[in-house]
Amino acid sequence: MIDPIFLDTPLYRCEALEPDLGCTVSIKLETANPVRSFKARGTEVVATQLANSDSRAVVCASAGNLGQALAWSGRHRGLDVTVVASRFAPAVKLDRIRALDARLELVDGDFDMARERAVAIARHDGIRLVEDSLDIETCEGAATIGLELVDTVPSFDAVLIALGGGALATGVGHAVKTIAPEVEVICIQPLGAPAMTHSFHQRRVVTTDSTNTIADGVAGRCPIPTVLDDLLLVADDAVLVQEASIITGMRMLLDHAGLVVEPSAALGIAAILEDRDRFAGRHVVTIVCGSNVDMNAYQRWVGTAAHTGGHH
Amino acid sequence: MIDPIFLDTPLYRCEALEPDLGCTVSIKLETANPVRSFKARGTEVVATQLANSDSRAVVCASAGNLGQALAWSGRHRGLDVTVVASRFAPAVKLDRIRALDARLELVDGDFDMARERAVAIARHDGIRLVEDSLDIETCEGAATIGLELVDTVPSFDAVLIALGGGALATGVGHAVKTIAPEVEVICIQPLGAPAMTHSFHQRRVVTTDSTNTIADGVAGRCPIPTVLDDLLLVADDAVLVQEASIITGMRMLLDHAGLVVEPSAALGIAAILEDRDRFAGRHVVTIVCGSNVDMNAYQRWVGTAAHTGGHH
Repeated sequence: MIDPIFLDTPLYRCEALEPDLGCTVSIKLETANPVRSFKARGTEVVATQLANSDSRAVVCASAGNLGQALAWSGRHRGLDVTVVASRFAPAVKLDRIRALDARLELVDGDFDMARERAVAIARHDGIRLVEDSLDIETCEGAATIGLELVDTVPSFDAVLIALGGGALATGVGHAVKTIAPEVEVICIQPLGAPAMTHSFHQRRVVTTDSTNTIADGVAGRCPIPTVLDDLLLVADDAVLVQEASIITGMRMLLDHAGLVVEPSAALGIAAILEDRDRFAGRHVVTIVCGSNVDMNAYQRWVGTAAHTGGHH
Repeated sequence: MIDPIFLDTPLYRCEALEPDLGCTVSIKLETANPVRSFKARGTEVVATQLANSDSRAVVCASAGNLGQALAWSGRHRGLDVTVVASRFAPAVKLDRIRALDARLELVDGDFDMARERAVAIARHDGIRLVEDSLDIETCEGAATIGLELVDTVPSFDAVLIALGGGALATGVGHAVKTIAPEVEVICIQPLGAPAMTHSFHQRRVVTTDSTNTIADGVAGRCPIPTVLDDLLLVADDAVLVQEASIITGMRMLLDHAGLVVEPSAALGIAAILEDRDRFAGRHVVTIVCGSNVDMNAYQRWVGTAAHTGGHH
């Protein structure tokens, strides 16, 4: 059901990162596709099902990447796509959603307010609501990354997964734990958006009043209960990282891997930076999950390149 | 013979580039691998052959990417690799060659002087010399890109290929012209390193006294006669582009595709920019052939991102 353009993404060891990180690092690159994130793996499944049904209209809330992916998948199948997003989402994400011919509705609030609005639209219009991380298709799409990981890498010790709503973590985690249970599944969230991580550790849903992070792709306040249940089954740990580490991670991926990434995609590197001892000498795979970033903001965060020091 | 890590690279349409270019643009991305260029496709073939022979030592001249690729391929097979390069090659390329355990010898001159020195080493030591573009393995490796192009893209009208020594152009050109002869094969060189392009148009080897371009990966003065013969068989055209267009191309790939590339990898975009009428409305594939670039130089060339204007 998934267009091959989104599958079998590059997976390769990046030795230039290793001297600074103290472990073997492989990258699973989910940015080299038409929507520059992994989200289309899931929206392809959703859109294929809709294309084979009587229902041609679909709505989702999105921090930016899911909406772009659903717009792409829907356009290729003649679906009528509506995306609800926060007006504070990165302009580059909103612009791409519009460019892909979706109807974009902005709410004057955050991602969780967009979710509420998408529910209302779906109910009012009687159309399909795609709920990221809750709808199994979004998790199944992400799970194909996990299948590719265990198929390809000879062996690895841990996989580092950005944790937002949970589709990526539960999808990849389920595939990895089923096939290679010895691999540690570690989820990473920013300290400024810790709701799901707190929920994981307390084994019950914990919400927060607000979020404060540059990692817009994972900034949620209200974890979904059944997604938390799934996460508790497949994740070994969830950790929080500081904004400064995310920025250092972005800069390292630029300087040593030549990759421009959005903040959420640097969470794995940030986790290694904050706990080198935990990963020392191990083989770690980090999923570079998106590269939709406003270049002005990127430049402001990462600043002058190559100032992390000399070459190795 | 080629490690799958270098094969079946991403090939995808990049719509965000299209408003500025006036044509449909697909990218064949050769940078998401351990050596960040296409060159390992060829060195994998060479190194596999050597690993199955009595000869375990090999030397090549390199502008930087071939040497890195040969070092990677050789290390994986226990070969003794020597790379000869110009001391003016980008430090990041030289550092990576050393980091991959190759012996690196620098000459106080340009790439063509490195070629002469590599010949002398091979003769003196009695070891295998890998001559980029002349040795058929280097062309065969590049040709696998062409096979992937004609296998995957539903249809395209032209392929834009960086022209240096000629391995990429003759390899891809041969594959494309054999299987999809209607596709236009267009080679691009900088005005500051025009020897092979002049040779192509005059149908005889033309050398230059010097080169002057930031596109270090394609800066040769002395075309190889038999490579020119092959190029004349498979290329439809060879064009020259200005440095300013290369820089604009690099900036567009950053702003609209999120890709950091070395100058040689932006030659295709530069060619479209300089002749929009030629490509108007057509579907063009450009091979993004490498991303080994000194980030300080990159920052100097590309400057503040996103100043090419608003979003589309």
